[in-house]
Amino acid sequence: MIELISMGLTFKSGELRILDQRLLPDQETWVTARSPEQMVELIQGLAVRGAPLIGVAAALTLGSFAMSSRQSQEAIREAAKKLRDARPTAVNLLWAIDRMLNENPDLNPDSLMRTAVRIFEEDVEMCDGMARSGAPLIKDGDGVLTICNTGGLATVGCGTALGVISEAARQGKKIHVYFCETRPLLQGGRLTAWELQKLGIPHTLICDSMAASLMQQGKIQKCFVGSDRIAANGDFANKIGTYSLAVLARHHGVAFYPVAPLSTVDPKCPNGAAIPIEERNPAEVRGVSGSFGKVRWAPENCAVHNPSFDVTPVALASGIVLNSGVYSATEFSQKFSAAATS
Amino acid sequence: MIELISMGLTFKSGELRILDQRLLPDQETWVTARSPEQMVELIQGLAVRGAPLIGVAAALTLGSFAMSSRQSQEAIREAAKKLRDARPTAVNLLWAIDRMLNENPDLNPDSLMRTAVRIFEEDVEMCDGMARSGAPLIKDGDGVLTICNTGGLATVGCGTALGVISEAARQGKKIHVYFCETRPLLQGGRLTAWELQKLGIPHTLICDSMAASLMQQGKIQKCFVGSDRIAANGDFANKIGTYSLAVLARHHGVAFYPVAPLSTVDPKCPNGAAIPIEERNPAEVRGVSGSFGKVRWAPENCAVHNPSFDVTPVALASGIVLNSGVYSATEFSQKFSAAATS
Repeated sequence: MIELISMGLTFKSGELRILDQRLLPDQETWVTARSPEQMVELIQGLAVRGAPLIGVAAALTLGSFAMSSRQSQEAIREAAKKLRDARPTAVNLLWAIDRMLNENPDLNPDSLMRTAVRIFEEDVEMCDGMARSGAPLIKDGDGVLTICNTGGLATVGCGTALGVISEAARQGKKIHVYFCETRPLLQGGRLTAWELQKLGIPHTLICDSMAASLMQQGKIQKCFVGSDRIAANGDFANKIGTYSLAVLARHHGVAFYPVAPLSTVDPKCPNGAAIPIEERNPAEVRGVSGSFGKVRWAPENCAVHNPSFDVTPVALASGIVLNSGVYSATEFSQKFSAAATS
Repeated sequence: MIELISMGLTFKSGELRILDQRLLPDQETWVTARSPEQMVELIQGLAVRGAPLIGVAAALTLGSFAMSSRQSQEAIREAAKKLRDARPTAVNLLWAIDRMLNENPDLNPDSLMRTAVRIFEEDVEMCDGMARSGAPLIKDGDGVLTICNTGGLATVGCGTALGVISEAARQGKKIHVYFCETRPLLQGGRLTAWELQKLGIPHTLICDSMAASLMQQGKIQKCFVGSDRIAANGDFANKIGTYSLAVLARHHGVAFYPVAPLSTVDPKCPNGAAIPIEERNPAEVRGVSGSFGKVRWAPENCAVHNPSFDVTPVALASGIVLNSGVYSATEFSQKFSAAATS
């Protein structure tokens, strides 16, 4: 019997269940996903979020749909298309569904299910790889700073940056985690706060503007952040506010590491300048909105700048933590720029 | 006939009116302050905020109370005490009421009123002095960054940092103002947004974490910030997030200036390390609250760090803008450290 368990998703006795992340941190509500249509709704409604988690959830939905009363090939293809289109910009979602279909051209339900389980297991392994690579960088007594949510809620394993941090704690190192609330969407204040409570790791929530004064007071020894895309030279894009932390870390002599799986490296992208940055809805900056409520404090028509990401030059990173190890800027560039031009 | 007009306070035909800042930016509601008791309520409820504005409002309240049907000396003293106690930590409030009493030991209503008017006029003059000193630092075409609210809503003149910026715009320089929303209390997103709309200066609201990427893109040439206290060596305390901007400005070669009246300099305080930093209510970081509504997104019991201020070492300032001129760190220290030891 297949049994898969992660912080935000379980698959037991053929039943796929999802922790509704919209309701965190106040309510832990699990929802059974009974059909591809329902999973599309859960993904579009952001009940399921975090690129790796979305990919795994969609693959398992397709696998269990194929298994359930042995659907027709046509129905499976249609379900795959619906899932793939749920969020057109989520690369992991496209990748997971395409892999399901490419590895199983005959759409055999049992093999589809096996591929979905492999996608789950590989995500866990990549997280474990990053945690193994990165945890030795953290020393007993360190104050560690992070941003956004990069843990078990964003993946089906222990996470990326937060996975490194929680592995160090699991190894018995006494650490204190400071985490940025991460305006405008507050993934830190909502989700990382919940996750660190769950993990029982000592932690303190700060507003994004408070990181500098913590570093000035010597309370931060290491920064670990996630990454949405790493260019061939090691420059990387991540949640807005990451570049700010990188500059502050350099000024204060604090070690700074991006953490990502190998699949995040884009060898075709030469450097940070080539990474496009999405500008999001200005309403997100004029106020806040979520299951917790909705308020607006800025003038309704106020001009706003709202980039999702910023780009950190590799020169500000003390190293790059991948599931395959920790790389210096030079090592990284040799490995991936060579791949890009070969 | 005395007629005093500022952005957040008017005194006409003996009537003192206050713009209720709690309701900004959505509603511009003016309230007539008819008694010392009512002014105490307005101050305690934060309808009137900004240290200089509070001082002026309290002085005018006392002056007009004394004038109204010629109150007894006892009643005037009692009113002064009530006003002085409205917010015990607001230095300008204590200073203004003490000055009213010290300059008018006989409590003559007409002279009390004259002192109150002088306090108003001197605040306007200090703002004009800062604006005159600082505006030449801004060039045509500059992108200018600021934080918190330091304009006409915090004073009865044009403001401190925002006064410098608006003076440059008034002089016809084409500038663009970027301003930080200023978590946790959002004085930027609420009040500076309103004020810049009112002044008609081109502006863009950002989350505090976005300043670094704007600097990286070359969009910011100058930073101007307020100050709550300047030590004798030039180190200064200001709204949390200011030190972060100072470090980011230095990294990007962006000029960075604190702006304050001479009364903000504390020659008895040798340096930044001697400035005490108040830790505020954790609820402010777990969510937001105001007349716009109240929401909490972080776990109810989440551990929080919430300092009101941070301290910027004078070495990161390109100069210090006072109403008496712009000082280099050396000039400043010579002027005020000498005063401290003499």
